Amino acid sequence: MDIKHDIVSKAQDAKNASRETASLSPSRKKEILMAMAVAVEKARDKIIFENSVDVEAAKESGLGQALVERLTLDGQRIAAMASAIREIAALPDPVGDVVSEWIAPSGIKIKKVRVPLGVVGMIYESRPNVTADASALCIKSGNAVILRGGTEAINSNHAIVRTLLAAGHEAGLPDGAIQFVETADRAAIIELIKLDKLVDLIIPRGSEAMIRFVREHAIVPVLAHGKGLCHTYIDKSADLAMARKIVFNAKCQRPGVCNAMETLLVHKAVAKDFLPDMCAVYSSAGVEVRGCAVTASIVPDVIKASDEDWSTEYLDMKVSVKVVTSIEEALGHINIYGSGHSEAIVTDDEVAAKKFMEEVDAAAVFHNASTRLHDGGSFGLGAEIGISTQKLHARGTMGARELTTTKFLVYGGGHIRE
Amino acid sequence: MDIKHDIVSKAQDAKNASRETASLSPSRKKEILMAMAVAVEKARDKIIFENSVDVEAAKESGLGQALVERLTLDGQRIAAMASAIREIAALPDPVGDVVSEWIAPSGIKIKKVRVPLGVVGMIYESRPNVTADASALCIKSGNAVILRGGTEAINSNHAIVRTLLAAGHEAGLPDGAIQFVETADRAAIIELIKLDKLVDLIIPRGSEAMIRFVREHAIVPVLAHGKGLCHTYIDKSADLAMARKIVFNAKCQRPGVCNAMETLLVHKAVAKDFLPDMCAVYSSAGVEVRGCAVTASIVPDVIKASDEDWSTEYLDMKVSVKVVTSIEEALGHINIYGSGHSEAIVTDDEVAAKKFMEEVDAAAVFHNASTRLHDGGSFGLGAEIGISTQKLHARGTMGARELTTTKFLVYGGGHIRE
Repeated sequence: MDIKHDIVSKAQDAKNASRETASLSPSRKKEILMAMAVAVEKARDKIIFENSVDVEAAKESGLGQALVERLTLDGQRIAAMASAIREIAALPDPVGDVVSEWIAPSGIKIKKVRVPLGVVGMIYESRPNVTADASALCIKSGNAVILRGGTEAINSNHAIVRTLLAAGHEAGLPDGAIQFVETADRAAIIELIKLDKLVDLIIPRGSEAMIRFVREHAIVPVLAHGKGLCHTYIDKSADLAMARKIVFNAKCQRPGVCNAMETLLVHKAVAKDFLPDMCAVYSSAGVEVRGCAVTASIVPDVIKASDEDWSTEYLDMKVSVKVVTSIEEALGHINIYGSGHSEAIVTDDEVAAKKFMEEVDAAAVFHNASTRLHDGGSFGLGAEIGISTQKLHARGTMGARELTTTKFLVYGGGHIRE
Repeated sequence: MDIKHDIVSKAQDAKNASRETASLSPSRKKEILMAMAVAVEKARDKIIFENSVDVEAAKESGLGQALVERLTLDGQRIAAMASAIREIAALPDPVGDVVSEWIAPSGIKIKKVRVPLGVVGMIYESRPNVTADASALCIKSGNAVILRGGTEAINSNHAIVRTLLAAGHEAGLPDGAIQFVETADRAAIIELIKLDKLVDLIIPRGSEAMIRFVREHAIVPVLAHGKGLCHTYIDKSADLAMARKIVFNAKCQRPGVCNAMETLLVHKAVAKDFLPDMCAVYSSAGVEVRGCAVTASIVPDVIKASDEDWSTEYLDMKVSVKVVTSIEEALGHINIYGSGHSEAIVTDDEVAAKKFMEEVDAAAVFHNASTRLHDGGSFGLGAEIGISTQKLHARGTMGARELTTTKFLVYGGGHIRE
């Protein structure tokens, strides 16, 4: 009962604040965000201290290495957090944008304009920088936000929110615009996702289990940022040197994130040329290779992959490898096991590339590039609130613009329906 | 168990078909739709006969007059159904549209293109023309569709689907692209809205209770076409002759639809000039007027409105009338009781109009025009699948383009994440 009361009251406060955030001027929002960026830098040591409490607890509780890595903040990551806020401040303001404007045959004039969504509920795990990114993007887009981070990062998140709020209010952020849910109790999530009169959108970002839980219980519309079970397919016409560079990057540059590659598919025609070398490179980098039977026949020292491997998002220094007999088999495998996040083909054959890019059903499909490039920064779109793996509203990397909706403004001169 | 099996099998068939519908050429889709339009005209008498069975049953079961009116088909409405299909055929094809295209700082080339959603589940009530509109719009946008109409229209809907399918298949519609759920059992809806591996979007269109039911049980993303509790506010600076024309149209032109006006708000400064006349006009047109205390003091013969009236979507020849002391009071009333559908202000004061249009949180806001103009046809956008009352993905009238999603196509030359 206490949790319910607490969540409803936070949501009500956010709803009230959202009327004010919606009408903040672009320059005021910029000032608020710049003040927040400075404050985050100033609070660096305090945030790192609070984060170390979380990291210690996570290690003690046996959280996996990749997850601990995601959780950990250092000076560089704090600086990156501040610079992401500055980047968001510098983005074009989406609110009020005229998407289209026309005069209908009846003579009425119609404008479709961008307006804030209202209140965004953000449910996320692990990475504390999401606290800053989500807050900044919601403010930029004129929304109020309710943050419910993972319990493993609660001290880090709370320190970040306190920092943002203190600086924000001084710069003119309306009271109540950023709400932080402190309780570790999952009941708080259930309450939050049922408040469809107060909350306009829920963004769950994290484990598959958490997202499924949200989807099953939510009445508020959900925009899922689901898992990334990403593949790279090395076609028979691939430039193998380029392929090596790409799949090494896709797996190793930062294995704990959703756009890292989990499964490598190799056409049988190039498997013998490609795999021995590639597996050796992976092994010496500390990547555990789990191969199909054909892979094992070519590279005897790989671990044999089980069926489970094809559907596992390792988020770790592990990769599954499968040799396929055709591009169709690769497409079939991806359409069964892929999570609709990021998929890549390496080939010099334009026909194969076109087929792959058309037939793969995913938010982003890459030709001769690493799946790690799927994010707002690499796309040149600025900071993102996450990568949507669903098809509704926003698919793939989403930023401030995707946190708005539209409204038709219709101007008549006594027009009626005939 | 039988129902579950039936729904899963229909959804699986739709999913398989959706790969083919996605790759239909624009000209093939046009041919399919033109053939369907002709077929609907040819089957006119058969459809009207099947409809008469539904209408008789509805009358016997005591369905309200407005709902019976929505259900009834005649020669004119069949002709309108065919012409809506032709209109959809003539619309620009949204699939493959390049939404944007740019080269990122890293040098990768990015294209954001429109692709079909996949499988759309349509759950609707009453109006049988939705069967034709939804099928045509889903085909136009490259989707497969699963139709679950109201049981009160089952014979009409089934006759329309049989007609569309026969003509469609002859013109090249893939098998399985239009699925029709025949059972009246509500369990079918529950099964359908949980199939998130097979169905990409659920559109519930109908009563508030049905939509709430869908929202509460769905795992598949939902795009609700909810109720229209629409207001018109007559400002103190309104042209009262224009106001009369607009609110008569908004209430009476077709009271059984979602963009009809339900509540009239009148500024106190013009209430005495405006209301006696207006109420007399309504009365002689057969509209029952339910007024607030102030209204009753001006027009003694109105029925006294209860609190419930402000939150009732009559869909009938009834109107509630409230005198307000300011535009702020009108805005407050709308933000409490409005359903976020269509709201209007009649005024010659540009400042008041601007305030109203900015502060009302609805899919469409009208200045000096009837709320009845909120639809794809009046907006010059062509036939619509409905009017979305939620903020995500599509808000307000939505057509073929809103039944698509996007996909990023990324072209590199060995690009990796640094």
